[in-house]
Amino acid sequence: MTGPEDELLSPDAVEVRDLNLALWTAVEEGDLDRLGAIWADGPDASTITCVHPGWPVLRGRTEVLRSYALIMANTSYVQFFLTDVQVTLDGDVAILSCTASLLTGMGEEDGGDDAGFAGGQAVVTNIFRRRDGEWRLWLHHASPVLAETDAEEEI
Amino acid sequence: MTGPEDELLSPDAVEVRDLNLALWTAVEEGDLDRLGAIWADGPDASTITCVHPGWPVLRGRTEVLRSYALIMANTSYVQFFLTDVQVTLDGDVAILSCTASLLTGMGEEDGGDDAGFAGGQAVVTNIFRRRDGEWRLWLHHASPVLAETDAEEEI
Repeated sequence: MTGPEDELLSPDAVEVRDLNLALWTAVEEGDLDRLGAIWADGPDASTITCVHPGWPVLRGRTEVLRSYALIMANTSYVQFFLTDVQVTLDGDVAILSCTASLLTGMGEEDGGDDAGFAGGQAVVTNIFRRRDGEWRLWLHHASPVLAETDAEEEI
Repeated sequence: MTGPEDELLSPDAVEVRDLNLALWTAVEEGDLDRLGAIWADGPDASTITCVHPGWPVLRGRTEVLRSYALIMANTSYVQFFLTDVQVTLDGDVAILSCTASLLTGMGEEDGGDDAGFAGGQAVVTNIFRRRDGEWRLWLHHASPVLAETDAEEEI
């Protein structure tokens, strides 16, 4: 699932990819301050948009950051594995899509190979915008992969 | 759920909003040709990205258009109602997010007020890119709203 992405990515794309990794790390670590620094602010504060898997849309910094606080308050341990990362740059907009596989700490104490795996996969679209030379997250859309569709095999 | 959007939107934003409406109409009418004209082509053909509700990510024109053919083949009647439409322009990129409520023809023959309503809501992010002056759809991400979260009331 990994590819020769580094070789193909521009410096801006690498920066965006790393910022995306920082986003997931911040969620893993429950670091709301870091999340607040990754999400856009200032003139974009009222229009930032966030969709958590299965959730309705949330708009605006206050509502978005509160949603993370709520999620973190209800999550004891979580780890993400990102695959199929695609970064596309167009002017001051960077669009990153990826698949996030979720691993939680539930049941980890039994130590089995499958211990703790829960939650499956989400497909993610992140849109970053550059203001004054700095990339910040402006839209996050994560959706649950409910099941492998037969479509891919049929078509 | 409707707002004074027309008064606030630039001509480009109106064009993008109308293209978004055309997308949903094309799905309602099962018009694959129209869909093919709305989705980006040429240099973007291999990178266009589509996520149907609950599906894994699909990339590339061939795979994306085939997925619509499959969905249409399995849908006798569908109608969408769009609300909470937000259009943001940044250079040659336009980002539209909205909520799509789904109405299907299932059970319509019984004529009740609730007849045919099925499928609930999806949250949608559409990214359009402008090439040679023409806006085309480059990314579509639709996710199911699985339930009203308590989060909105709690926070």
